[in-house]
Amino acid sequence: MNTYGKVFKITTYGESHGRALGVVIDGCPAGLEIDETFINKELQRRKPGQSKITTQRREEDKVEILSGVFEGKATGMPISMVVYNTDQRSKDYSHIHDKFRPSHADYTYTAKYGLRDYRGGGRSSARETLARVAAGAVAKQFLASKNINVYAYVSQVGALSLNKPYTELDLNNTDNNIVRCPDNATAEKMIALIDETRKSRDTIGGLVTCVIKGVPAGLGEPVFDKLHAELGKAMLSINAVKGFEFGSGFEGIKLNGSVHNDIFYKDEQGNVRTKTNHSGGVQGGISNGEDIYFNTAFKPVATIMQDQESLNESGEEVTVTGKGRHDPCVVPRAVPIVEAMSALVITDFFLRNETTKLK
Amino acid sequence: MNTYGKVFKITTYGESHGRALGVVIDGCPAGLEIDETFINKELQRRKPGQSKITTQRREEDKVEILSGVFEGKATGMPISMVVYNTDQRSKDYSHIHDKFRPSHADYTYTAKYGLRDYRGGGRSSARETLARVAAGAVAKQFLASKNINVYAYVSQVGALSLNKPYTELDLNNTDNNIVRCPDNATAEKMIALIDETRKSRDTIGGLVTCVIKGVPAGLGEPVFDKLHAELGKAMLSINAVKGFEFGSGFEGIKLNGSVHNDIFYKDEQGNVRTKTNHSGGVQGGISNGEDIYFNTAFKPVATIMQDQESLNESGEEVTVTGKGRHDPCVVPRAVPIVEAMSALVITDFFLRNETTKLK
Amino acid sequence: MNTYGKVFKITTYGESHGRALGVVIDGCPAGLEIDETFINKELQRRKPGQSKITTQRREEDKVEILSGVFEGKATGMPISMVVYNTDQRSKDYSHIHDKFRPSHADYTYTAKYGLRDYRGGGRSSARETLARVAAGAVAKQFLASKNINVYAYVSQVGALSLNKPYTELDLNNTDNNIVRCPDNATAEKMIALIDETRKSRDTIGGLVTCVIKGVPAGLGEPVFDKLHAELGKAMLSINAVKGFEFGSGFEGIKLNGSVHNDIFYKDEQGNVRTKTNHSGGVQGGISNGEDIYFNTAFKPVATIMQDQESLNESGEEVTVTGKGRHDPCVVPRAVPIVEAMSALVITDFFLRNETTKLK
Amino acid sequence: MNTYGKVFKITTYGESHGRALGVVIDGCPAGLEIDETFINKELQRRKPGQSKITTQRREEDKVEILSGVFEGKATGMPISMVVYNTDQRSKDYSHIHDKFRPSHADYTYTAKYGLRDYRGGGRSSARETLARVAAGAVAKQFLASKNINVYAYVSQVGALSLNKPYTELDLNNTDNNIVRCPDNATAEKMIALIDETRKSRDTIGGLVTCVIKGVPAGLGEPVFDKLHAELGKAMLSINAVKGFEFGSGFEGIKLNGSVHNDIFYKDEQGNVRTKTNHSGGVQGGISNGEDIYFNTAFKPVATIMQDQESLNESGEEVTVTGKGRHDPCVVPRAVPIVEAMSALVITDFFLRNETTKLK
Repeated sequence: MNTYGKVFKITTYGESHGRALGVVIDGCPAGLEIDETFINKELQRRKPGQSKITTQRREEDKVEILSGVFEGKATGMPISMVVYNTDQRSKDYSHIHDKFRPSHADYTYTAKYGLRDYRGGGRSSARETLARVAAGAVAKQFLASKNINVYAYVSQVGALSLNKPYTELDLNNTDNNIVRCPDNATAEKMIALIDETRKSRDTIGGLVTCVIKGVPAGLGEPVFDKLHAELGKAMLSINAVKGFEFGSGFEGIKLNGSVHNDIFYKDEQGNVRTKTNHSGGVQGGISNGEDIYFNTAFKPVATIMQDQESLNESGEEVTVTGKGRHDPCVVPRAVPIVEAMSALVITDFFLRNETTKLK
Repeated sequence: MNTYGKVFKITTYGESHGRALGVVIDGCPAGLEIDETFINKELQRRKPGQSKITTQRREEDKVEILSGVFEGKATGMPISMVVYNTDQRSKDYSHIHDKFRPSHADYTYTAKYGLRDYRGGGRSSARETLARVAAGAVAKQFLASKNINVYAYVSQVGALSLNKPYTELDLNNTDNNIVRCPDNATAEKMIALIDETRKSRDTIGGLVTCVIKGVPAGLGEPVFDKLHAELGKAMLSINAVKGFEFGSGFEGIKLNGSVHNDIFYKDEQGNVRTKTNHSGGVQGGISNGEDIYFNTAFKPVATIMQDQESLNESGEEVTVTGKGRHDPCVVPRAVPIVEAMSALVITDFFLRNETTKLK
Repeated sequence: MNTYGKVFKITTYGESHGRALGVVIDGCPAGLEIDETFINKELQRRKPGQSKITTQRREEDKVEILSGVFEGKATGMPISMVVYNTDQRSKDYSHIHDKFRPSHADYTYTAKYGLRDYRGGGRSSARETLARVAAGAVAKQFLASKNINVYAYVSQVGALSLNKPYTELDLNNTDNNIVRCPDNATAEKMIALIDETRKSRDTIGGLVTCVIKGVPAGLGEPVFDKLHAELGKAMLSINAVKGFEFGSGFEGIKLNGSVHNDIFYKDEQGNVRTKTNHSGGVQGGISNGEDIYFNTAFKPVATIMQDQESLNESGEEVTVTGKGRHDPCVVPRAVPIVEAMSALVITDFFLRNETTKLK
Repeated sequence: MNTYGKVFKITTYGESHGRALGVVIDGCPAGLEIDETFINKELQRRKPGQSKITTQRREEDKVEILSGVFEGKATGMPISMVVYNTDQRSKDYSHIHDKFRPSHADYTYTAKYGLRDYRGGGRSSARETLARVAAGAVAKQFLASKNINVYAYVSQVGALSLNKPYTELDLNNTDNNIVRCPDNATAEKMIALIDETRKSRDTIGGLVTCVIKGVPAGLGEPVFDKLHAELGKAMLSINAVKGFEFGSGFEGIKLNGSVHNDIFYKDEQGNVRTKTNHSGGVQGGISNGEDIYFNTAFKPVATIMQDQESLNESGEEVTVTGKGRHDPCVVPRAVPIVEAMSALVITDFFLRNETTKLK
C-alpha cells in the first residue's frame, strides 16, 4: 500500500501534522555512495515557503539517516530516513476537523477507514511527497553512477503553455526561476499568472514535462509492467495529478501510422537510433535508448481562500472557510517530485533488468 | 512481470504464434459462480476477424478451464484458462525474422533479452490481451455480484471526436455497431474513416472512454496505489496506449480551483454526493461513490501495408514490407480490453478493501 | 497464494482429478537452454506407479510446454507447462464426497472455502507437487549452468534410520533402488519395512536429507528471507511435512558454543573455508560456500486401508473406509520433490543476488 | 528483503550500533486500539540486561510512534515505530572490525555485500529482533480483539529438557522466572545450567515451544503458504534458529498412520474437534481450530568469552578474543521474539482470510 518498487523498494509513512514523515529504502545496492547533502538539497527544492508563489508553511525539512549507510556508503541494509515535523500548528485545522473539504480526501478517507487524522489532511496531504523526494535523491545518485539524468520542468500553468519541445530548451535553466520553467520569458508570465490567481484567493492547474536522458535500451517489462505504464502509475500517484501521456501522447491519436512510426537508422557510432521519437523512448514497454519524455497534468489545488458549501461527518450542511497556508499552483514544487518518482521508476527497472539474461 | 493484482491476481503467458495463450487467476473468492459462456462471449468481442475494420486473422479463441472451478463455482483454487492458437501461419513472418519493424518491439526485445520469438511479434503482439479479457470476464462476474458495471466505448478515431459527455450517451448501444461508438451517427463516420485509412494501406489512432458505475465509496489506496494510478497503469499496459486521463484530465489544468472543486451535497436518499464530477469519481486516490470515468489514447498501429526503411539484427539497412493481417485501427477491439483491465483493477481494490477496517 | 519465488517465480494450478495440472514460470533468464526430456525424466521420478512401494495410480505425467521456449531456449517470457490428467477415475471418491477423512484437508478446506472439490482431495492432493517438479527441473538446468547440484535421499523410514552422515555416502547411488536411499543395505531394510506396512494396510513416516553442493558464498538475505528460512518454508510447504532442521539442527541445542562454532581457515586454493560445518553452509542467513544440508520430516500418509470413525459435512458420525491407490510411505517419491523445491529456492536467491552490489 | 507479511506487512531497519532501529507496519486495520504501554512492556521482555543470565548491555528500548496512530487508534496509515540506540559503545568492537568471528555473519556479509557495518555485528545482530517485537505487540493487540493468544516458553536448555506436554503446564507462569520456563523446578535447573555455562565462558543452545490458542478453523493457504510453512519460515528467520517442527514433528516419522491420524468428533457445543492433535492444529496447511503448537531449536550463541582462531578480511590467520556483553543462552530472551513472529504470522493469515469466500 505504502510501498513502491520491486527491487529498489521504498516504504513511506507520516502525516502532515504528525510527529514525522519518513521512508525506508530496501534494495539499494551496497557500495553506492550516499551524499546526505544532496538529499537535503533535493528536499529544499520541494520544501514549502521557498518563494512567494508557494505555501508559506515553515519547515526545515532536514533528513536524518537512521540506518543502512556506513562510512558514506550504502551497506545493502535498509536505509531509513526521517524528517521531523516542526511547524505543525494543529490548531489551524480545528475549524474543519469534522468537515469534508470539497475535492479533498476527507470524505473518501472517512468512508474507507471510518476515522481520519484531520490535522492538515493527515496522510492525504502533499507533504507525504517529502519522503518520495528523499528516496528519489538516493535513486538519482544511483542513476548518476550510470550516467542517467532526469529533468522535469513546468510547461504549462492554466491556459498558459510553453509552446516549445524540450529539445529547444536549456534544461539546466529550470531552477533559475521560481516557477521552474526553463524558458525565462514564459516563466515570468507564469509567475504573474500564479500570483494573480493567489491574489484572487483562487488556485490553478499546471503541466510538468519530464525528460530522462541516458536510459539504455532494454529497461522495462513486456506486459503489465511496461516502462511507461510504471511511469504513468508513479506520476498519477502524485497528489493532484489527473493525466499522463508519453511520446506523441494524446496528439498521437490523430496521426497515421506512416507518419507516427519511428524509422530506425544507425548513427555514426554504430548505435541503433530512431529518426523521430514519437515513441517517447519506449517501444513495446521497453526502452529503446532514445530520450524518454512525458507530460503530467495537475489540477488546481483544492484548498482555496474562499467560502465553499459542504457537508460534515454528520451529513449536515456547513461552510468550509479557506484558511491556512497553501500553494496557489502546485507545479513549481511538483518538479522535484516528478523527478524523484521518475528516478525511482528507472532505478527499479535498471536493477530488475540485471536478471533478464543468462550470464 | 507477467502478474497483475495484489489479491485478485492474474498471471498470463503465451505468444502470438506459439502453442497457446492463457491465464491463471489466483485469489478469486470461493463460491463465485463462473459462467464459461460469458467468458467466451467476451473473447468474441476481442477476437480478430469480427468485422471488415479488424484484422482478418482467423482464430476460434475458445477458452478451456483447466482448474479452480467445480460444479460451476470457483473453489478458491487457481483458475487456469487456456486458449490454443489454431491459425498460426508462422511462414507469414519469415520475411521479417531478423528485421526490426519500425515502432514495434522487435528491437527493444532483442536489446533486452538477446533473442526473441519473431513469429508474429511473439509476446509483444496484442494477441496477449486475449488472456486479460478472459480474466477480466471472471472479474466482471465478481463485480456484477456487487452491482458494479464497466462500460467502455470508442470516443475518437483520428481527429474525428465524439463531442458528447458519456452522460448523454446510451452506453448499452456500444456493441450495436462495429466500431463500438454508442452514437450511431458518429460511429458511421468513424467506420468510414477507418475503412478509408485501411484502403490507403495506413493505420490511425483512437480514443477509448470508460465509465465504471456502482463503485462504492472507499476503494483505492492513499499513496502509491491510488485508484486512478492503478487504472492508469492498467490502461497504459495495453498495447499501443500513449496516454491516460481521468475526470477533468488535461483540460482540468486550465481551470481554477473555485470552478474545479466538486461541491458535496446530500441526495434524497441521504447519500453524500457531489454536484459536479471533475474528480472523476476518485478523491485522494479513493473512490467517492460517483461514476469513475477516464480516457485512454491509442496510437496508430505500427504495422502498415507500405514499405518502410529499417535495420536488421546485424545493423544492415533493410526494407520492411507490410504483409499479414492487421487492424487499421485498434480501438474497436480495444473496448473489451479496456473493460477487462478496468474490471480487474476494481475487483482487486474491492477485495483489498476487505481488510481496511477492524471488523 | 499459489506463487513461489521473488525473481524466479512459479505459479501452479490444478487438482488431483481435474482436467490438468500446470505451472507458469516467470523470470527465467533468457537464453537458458531448456531440455524438455530432462523435465519429463524428473517427472518420472515423482510419478505414481513406479514401484511396488508407491501408489498404483497410472498417469503418464508428460509435460507440454505452451510458451516461453523458442528454438530450445528460454525467451524471457513466461514458461507455461501443463500436464493433463488421464487416470482420473472420479468414481473412486464418491464414497467420501461429504466425509472428512481423518488428518486430510477435507475439513479445513470446507471450513475455509465453504465448498471443495472432493475428487481425490482436489488441490490438497500431493499430485499438486507434480507442477513443482516440472518447475524445479527448469531450475535445476539453471543451477547446472552454475555448477550447483542438489542431492536428496531417504535417510529414515519409521524408526529405521540411516546412521551415516551424507559425507560417507555415494549420493549418485540414490536412484539405484526404489526407496531412494544411497546405502543399499539400509535401502533393503527400508523397502521391507514399507512393504510390510503396506501389507498391514497401514502407512509410515520418513525422513529426507538433502545436500546442495556448489552454492557460492553470498546467497540469502539477512533478516526475514534467510536462506535456511526459505528452504524451511519450501520444505514445510510439501504435503505431509512436519519438521525441518539444517546443519546441527535439533541436536545443536545440546552443544556448547565452543564446540558448535565452525572455525575458519584458508584452504590450498586460498578459499575461506570452515573446519566443521555445524552451520550447514549458512551463517546469518547467507551461504558461506560450504555444503548446505538439511533434513525434512514426513508424517505417515493419512489415507490408510482401514476403517476409521469420522464426521461428514452435516456433522454426522460416519465411517471412512480406506480405498483407492495410495503410497504406504511418501519419502521415496518425496525425494525429487525436495530436490525441486531446493532448486527453486537456490535459483531464486541466485538471481536475487544479482542486484546486491553496485556494479 | 526486510519486509514480512502480505496484508499486515512489516518493514524493519536498523543496526546494532547505528542510530536507531525501527519498523513500519503497513496494513493494520483502521480502528484498532493501540496501547503504547503494552508495546513497551513487550520490549522490556526482550531487552538486554534484564537478568543475570542475559547480556549486560544497557538499553532503554523505549519505542516512539511516529505515525499511523491518532487519538489512540490505528488510522489505516503506516504505523512507524522507532527505538534509538543509546548504549552504542562502538569502541568495544574495534578489535574485530576486520576479523571474521566464527559462526557469525561477518564473512557471509562481506562475501555478499563487499562491505559491512562491523559495529556489533551491524544488522546481523539479534538486536534487529527488537523491531519484530514492537510490531508483534501490535499484532498481539489485533489477535486479542479476536480472542487469539500466543504462549511461548523455554522447554529445553542444552540437554536439560522439560519433559511435559504443554497441556500439563500453566502457561501463565512463564514470566515468573528469569529463564521463562513455566515449570518452576525445571526453571531452576535451567538457570543453574546457563549460569554455569556463562561462568565457563561458554554458551549453550535451547528450545522454545509455542502454543497458539483460539485460532479459528480456516486460516492458512493450500500450497506454498501453508500456515505451518509460514510459521516455520518466521521462526527460522530468528537469529540462531536451526530447526522447526510442529505437531508430532520429527517424532511423527516413527508412527503409523493408524496411530497418527487425528480422529474427528463433535464436542458438546457441536464443534468439529479432533480426539488427538498430532496435526498440531494445522491440516493441509490450514488451521482446524485445535491448538497450534510447535518447537523452535536455537543453537548456542556464537560469541564466547574464549580465544578462537580465525581469518581476517585479508585472509590472514588471526585470533578472535571474546569480549563485550553477550547472552550465554538466547532462549529466555527469544520467548517474546517467538511470540511476536507467531502473532505476525497469525494476524497476516487472519486478514488474508477475509477475501477467501464470496461475501
